[in-house]
Amino acid sequence: MTVSFADIEAAALRIAPHAHVTPVLHSASLDALAGCRLRFKCENLQRAGAFKFRGACNAVWSLPEDVARRGVVTHSSGNHGAALALAARTRGIACHVVVPEGAVVTKVAAIVRYGATVHTCAPSLAARDALAASVQRDTGATLVHPYTDERVIAGQGTAARELLRDEPELDALIAPIGGGGLIGGSAIAARALRPQIHIFAAEPEGAAEAHASLERGERVTELQPDTIADGLRAVLGQINFDLLRQHDVRVLLASDAEIVAAMRLIWERLKLVVEPSSAVTLAAILRQRERFSGQRVGVILSGGNVDLDQLPWCH
Amino acid sequence: MTVSFADIEAAALRIAPHAHVTPVLHSASLDALAGCRLRFKCENLQRAGAFKFRGACNAVWSLPEDVARRGVVTHSSGNHGAALALAARTRGIACHVVVPEGAVVTKVAAIVRYGATVHTCAPSLAARDALAASVQRDTGATLVHPYTDERVIAGQGTAARELLRDEPELDALIAPIGGGGLIGGSAIAARALRPQIHIFAAEPEGAAEAHASLERGERVTELQPDTIADGLRAVLGQINFDLLRQHDVRVLLASDAEIVAAMRLIWERLKLVVEPSSAVTLAAILRQRERFSGQRVGVILSGGNVDLDQLPWCH
Repeated sequence: MTVSFADIEAAALRIAPHAHVTPVLHSASLDALAGCRLRFKCENLQRAGAFKFRGACNAVWSLPEDVARRGVVTHSSGNHGAALALAARTRGIACHVVVPEGAVVTKVAAIVRYGATVHTCAPSLAARDALAASVQRDTGATLVHPYTDERVIAGQGTAARELLRDEPELDALIAPIGGGGLIGGSAIAARALRPQIHIFAAEPEGAAEAHASLERGERVTELQPDTIADGLRAVLGQINFDLLRQHDVRVLLASDAEIVAAMRLIWERLKLVVEPSSAVTLAAILRQRERFSGQRVGVILSGGNVDLDQLPWCH
Repeated sequence: MTVSFADIEAAALRIAPHAHVTPVLHSASLDALAGCRLRFKCENLQRAGAFKFRGACNAVWSLPEDVARRGVVTHSSGNHGAALALAARTRGIACHVVVPEGAVVTKVAAIVRYGATVHTCAPSLAARDALAASVQRDTGATLVHPYTDERVIAGQGTAARELLRDEPELDALIAPIGGGGLIGGSAIAARALRPQIHIFAAEPEGAAEAHASLERGERVTELQPDTIADGLRAVLGQINFDLLRQHDVRVLLASDAEIVAAMRLIWERLKLVVEPSSAVTLAAILRQRERFSGQRVGVILSGGNVDLDQLPWCH
């Protein structure tokens, strides 16, 4: 099981009629704070508000017509569910999303708005997989896993590909890591387009599976996530872990307090609404300034789906 | 006293080394809500967080060297002050900003961060003008008025010029109106590049001087502003009023409640941090959907400098 740069090139063509080419922004005042030149790939401005639309769209449009007609199903507490719902709508097919109780309200609302059927389950892996399997049995829908699906990983890689087309001279690239779909695709694209680039995954201290896995040399999956970055609480996938090692990705950590401070800086200086999961990148850079000093650093801002009534700094 | 499209073309060349070319974004879900095709020119992503940098930069770089050396001075409760401070810094000259007591804290902080000297005065026109005149006398600095200065108006017009280069087929253009610098420059550019376009100024009901002035056929200046849109509380300028009539600009109103609702929609759907003054445009469109039905509408999002601790929906 593997994903190649050719798969990412094919995904880019496949999703081009549907996905936005997102802008790359920078801020002189953030550069001064960080001591390096930051180039932000704004996937919060992607359709459905996150990079997830790239992978979902590639998966949906990869299906043969007779398979597509039976619809797609996934489990997701948020952005992937909304992305798959919108992607399914672009092809006019049904979408089912299994959502655990307690998911972020605005994210579930988006899944519904894009026309998917929501199936609520208890917040456990077993309940989730059982319900998804039962939907598959009943409908014949194709399962599109949020981050281990190869079509999804290839789609996520199109963001880094676009970023490196706009900014070919990057010294480093950093993206958040949860299950590992975004960083997996990003690593494949970045190594292909700029072999000498340093690639970093930014991870919350409260959900540091990737960090622990690379230290131990095998995949760690038993940690209980406890972080404000709701998009990064997923269990690291095996293919994703393999991609980290294959492409020499290093993991940098940030605390929730650092994530919130970085999120606020992005809102204030870049004027972008980003969710906590996006801000872990800038938080990690600010914690390790010396590592990036003077460099050109590509930063993937993964998404902007945040509950505006629940901002961490106004209660 | 007049500003021509040639002045805007010259301003565009002059500011190009310093200003951002801002992206134009759109959202399928906002289009569905509004019943038209909205193209948002993101001046909140401009340097110093607002279109104001365009006019300030044009003014600063228009000065002969010996005049520039004595610095610039202005009065502003916010974005123009920060913009002039940053523009002055790009030329390495001094900047003085007269700020009334009670201005938005983050805006004053930005003026200081960009290296200007802040002079605080009582919140009255007389106190403001007296202090600005005294700074001029003491330093020989050039006064750069926030919106009646022709160099400023020409600079502000470069945003609409860029928008129409990216979106040449617009049926309508809408921008907020306070003192009238942005809409003045926008109207000149839009009429020159697309003569048949409908041009609208969006104004808060609580600061409806332009609306009253066009109704009465002469400039009204005695209204007491009462609106959440802190950037739009200025007194309409005479040259600005003349430009409204000359270019057949119509004024559309929105209430503060509509402005807050539209601001929230922009944050939620476009993932952009905009200040209330920017959101009056979308608020006016949503109030008068039938007027824009099915059209391609350019919307200038004027700025994103908002106090994140004081958001209207979380107290």
